[in-house]
Amino acid sequence: MRDLARDARWLSINTATTRGQWDLRQAIDGVARAGIAGISPWRDQLQAMGVAAAAAAIRANGLVVTGLCRGGMFTEFDRAGLARALDDNRRAVDEAAAIGARCLVLVVGGLAPRSRDLAAARALVRDGIAALLPHARAAGVPLAIEPLHPMYAADRACINTLAEANDLCDALGEGVGVAIDVYHVWWDRALEREIARAGRAGRILAYHVCDWLVPTRDLLLDRGMMGDGVIDLKRIRSWIEAAGYAGSCEVEIFSRENWWKRPGEEVLATCIERYRRVC
Amino acid sequence: MRDLARDARWLSINTATTRGQWDLRQAIDGVARAGIAGISPWRDQLQAMGVAAAAAAIRANGLVVTGLCRGGMFTEFDRAGLARALDDNRRAVDEAAAIGARCLVLVVGGLAPRSRDLAAARALVRDGIAALLPHARAAGVPLAIEPLHPMYAADRACINTLAEANDLCDALGEGVGVAIDVYHVWWDRALEREIARAGRAGRILAYHVCDWLVPTRDLLLDRGMMGDGVIDLKRIRSWIEAAGYAGSCEVEIFSRENWWKRPGEEVLATCIERYRRVC
Repeated sequence: MRDLARDARWLSINTATTRGQWDLRQAIDGVARAGIAGISPWRDQLQAMGVAAAAAAIRANGLVVTGLCRGGMFTEFDRAGLARALDDNRRAVDEAAAIGARCLVLVVGGLAPRSRDLAAARALVRDGIAALLPHARAAGVPLAIEPLHPMYAADRACINTLAEANDLCDALGEGVGVAIDVYHVWWDRALEREIARAGRAGRILAYHVCDWLVPTRDLLLDRGMMGDGVIDLKRIRSWIEAAGYAGSCEVEIFSRENWWKRPGEEVLATCIERYRRVC
Repeated sequence: MRDLARDARWLSINTATTRGQWDLRQAIDGVARAGIAGISPWRDQLQAMGVAAAAAAIRANGLVVTGLCRGGMFTEFDRAGLARALDDNRRAVDEAAAIGARCLVLVVGGLAPRSRDLAAARALVRDGIAALLPHARAAGVPLAIEPLHPMYAADRACINTLAEANDLCDALGEGVGVAIDVYHVWWDRALEREIARAGRAGRILAYHVCDWLVPTRDLLLDRGMMGDGVIDLKRIRSWIEAAGYAGSCEVEIFSRENWWKRPGEEVLATCIERYRRVC
């Protein structure tokens, strides 16, 4: 395993982590000032700043863009509305290309409106990604399917295990891979095997870290800082690296009541310290 | 599929559903008054009423006891404390036998204290159930492993899919089966296959229903009434019945802000109406 204690070369900050206190311009400045190598913006923040201005600021600070969050949501308007979802996803691909993002992270969408049919949602997601792929391939932007925790199956993503994401990648071919976020997959007894499988296929496009708090007080906005919860981060990273991944550890923490209320500099300093010690 | 619209013969009420308003004596009376066939008590309520008094009241009202909730928590004191957990589980078996429960439901426990090792927790659970089995077999009480939603992996149960529960049953042999609660497993793409597998082995000991609300406001205490959420209840019951299950639909709803605040009679009347129409 790589020794993370020495520098922050493989650390990246997903801007969701400082969403409570910083806009994207502040986040770019803050990340660069902290000596962190990478950043991963969210689209709403990117659009608020302006894609060209953000691309210039990221370039000027020499930051690696480990991903753009997020495309997907193919089920948002049900099957009849897939074309609308695809239009938005093509724009997301273009934005990812404009800022030099290593991948476009896909949160694929949950059940379609007024539907209880998970199998239909999963078929719609498969068809949506297939329809998006030609544009993504032409733009040189890999699509990263992020399996989300089963507690988000209804409203955010109906792809809920790494095995499902791997199967989907197998079916879709070149240009699509996975984003592995420990928060979503840490509980899965098949995790080591499926990480190895993703590695063999060369499709691990991103690795996200945070922690699972006990108790967790909110389904969405109570993620923990690495080391404050129960996820065995070093063990999972050992699997990821054994699978050939040599990219960044991207910190993505949604924390309305804690980290979003602290000064951004403190959040980033804590991210660095935890990355060095517990990731 | 059985026609549930005609009577409440296969309906059972888990007393967690009326925990906010009724003790066990009131729940037994209320369930019997409503013409519901089955009940499934929790141990704390059973002990508060007294096991002998509860057994007599249940018998006097002619109720079927579809389960006792709950044994398990084998990881509560870590491996060194397993003997304590086993003592309590043997008492749970005896209580289940005393009230004529069809099974003792096992919520197996999450991570051991100060541990991040899920594999170790799973091994401890396997060893705990194996150690409990001779007592359960002698008492004639089947043990029902309930896979819990992955969002409870840390603090309640490290068995998080029906596939895991089935594997565990395969390893443990006679006297152990599964309790299938739609709330915990509805998201799982392997659900139909694993229900069929459990059915082939004759090990579906209980079937629990409620619904998954969107949004869900609390990880533990915001379950929905059947029909108010997104779970495809009829489809899952079709799988369960195709697998040979002919037992009860047991309603188990933890709902601090809604159903626990309403009169018990209203809750039960709603359970009956939804059982007939949407289960």
